[in-house]
Amino acid sequence: QAPRKAANIENRLPCSLEELYKGTTKKMKISREIADASGKTLPVEEILTIEVKPGWKKGTKITYPEKGNEQPNVIPADLVFVIDEKPHNVFTRDGNDLVVTQKISLAEALTGYNVRITTLDGRALNISINNVIHPNYEEIVPKEGMPIPKDPSKKGNLRIKFNIKFPTRLTSEQKVGIKKLLAP
Amino acid sequence: QAPRKAANIENRLPCSLEELYKGTTKKMKISREIADASGKTLPVEEILTIEVKPGWKKGTKITYPEKGNEQPNVIPADLVFVIDEKPHNVFTRDGNDLVVTQKISLAEALTGYNVRITTLDGRALNISINNVIHPNYEEIVPKEGMPIPKDPSKKGNLRIKFNIKFPTRLTSEQKVGIKKLLAP
Repeated sequence: QAPRKAANIENRLPCSLEELYKGTTKKMKISREIADASGKTLPVEEILTIEVKPGWKKGTKITYPEKGNEQPNVIPADLVFVIDEKPHNVFTRDGNDLVVTQKISLAEALTGYNVRITTLDGRALNISINNVIHPNYEEIVPKEGMPIPKDPSKKGNLRIKFNIKFPTRLTSEQKVGIKKLLAP
Repeated sequence: QAPRKAANIENRLPCSLEELYKGTTKKMKISREIADASGKTLPVEEILTIEVKPGWKKGTKITYPEKGNEQPNVIPADLVFVIDEKPHNVFTRDGNDLVVTQKISLAEALTGYNVRITTLDGRALNISINNVIHPNYEEIVPKEGMPIPKDPSKKGNLRIKFNIKFPTRLTSEQKVGIKKLLAP
């Protein structure tokens, strides 16, 4: 009778968006039982080194074959690490794109706005927008998204969206002024 | 051996939103085979009268038991009509609510806007809004939604949403004026 193989052991491997952008090395200490020639098992600790490549996505799996416990007549389980993406407080990820939402005032939306963003690798981006920014406006910054794992020299886009804060109330004078200014 | 029953025959019954609002009577002409005492079948036409009640929803089923063809040793099929809702060019339905989106200019959003809507039963509604209308603003008009079938004296809400059309470009003079007017 062929020995059965133990079921995969899956572990989440949470990574920050910065780590997934730049790539990183994670060292994971695991404890397992190994068997000697006589079949007696003893506990050991091992350190696994996982190279997280730039641009890896949530759900990427890294498999260490037969790194589960050794026991008689059973092929040890595969140890599987599954990349998970920690929430980021500025960017969200959409495939290879990064998306950021800027909260701006209506006056800024109408008169011009300068976006300042710190990239995931710490560079300062300055993008000045002179167009009128409407509620569905999206500014696309090419190649400032996530690296593409197959070719990390290529990158997705950075998409800047805007949440336009309208004034809660306007005086009659302001209303008269706006009617004059925006008259068709 | 018990006679088997023929599978249900389903037909869509498309209704306009006006019909579902007010209720209506639909007369459907059906052709079927009926059997005489000797088992011989002959074609007949029948008119079914369906009372569509105010507030009925898409998916409501009306079943006429055993109105399918009669044939020896088979219980005739049930004839089932399934209410379908035709798209409306002003309103969409969200449960018992009606939703309408008004396209307005930025000046109208800021200085006040008068909504004029013709209801599904032909009344003119006039709602004047003096608040600043921001992109997620929703004006709720109670009891101007769809009738609730269990108690047609009750109705859902009418929800008015706004699509604010921003100017595509502004002159420097306009920008200066807006900065002054909307200065915090």
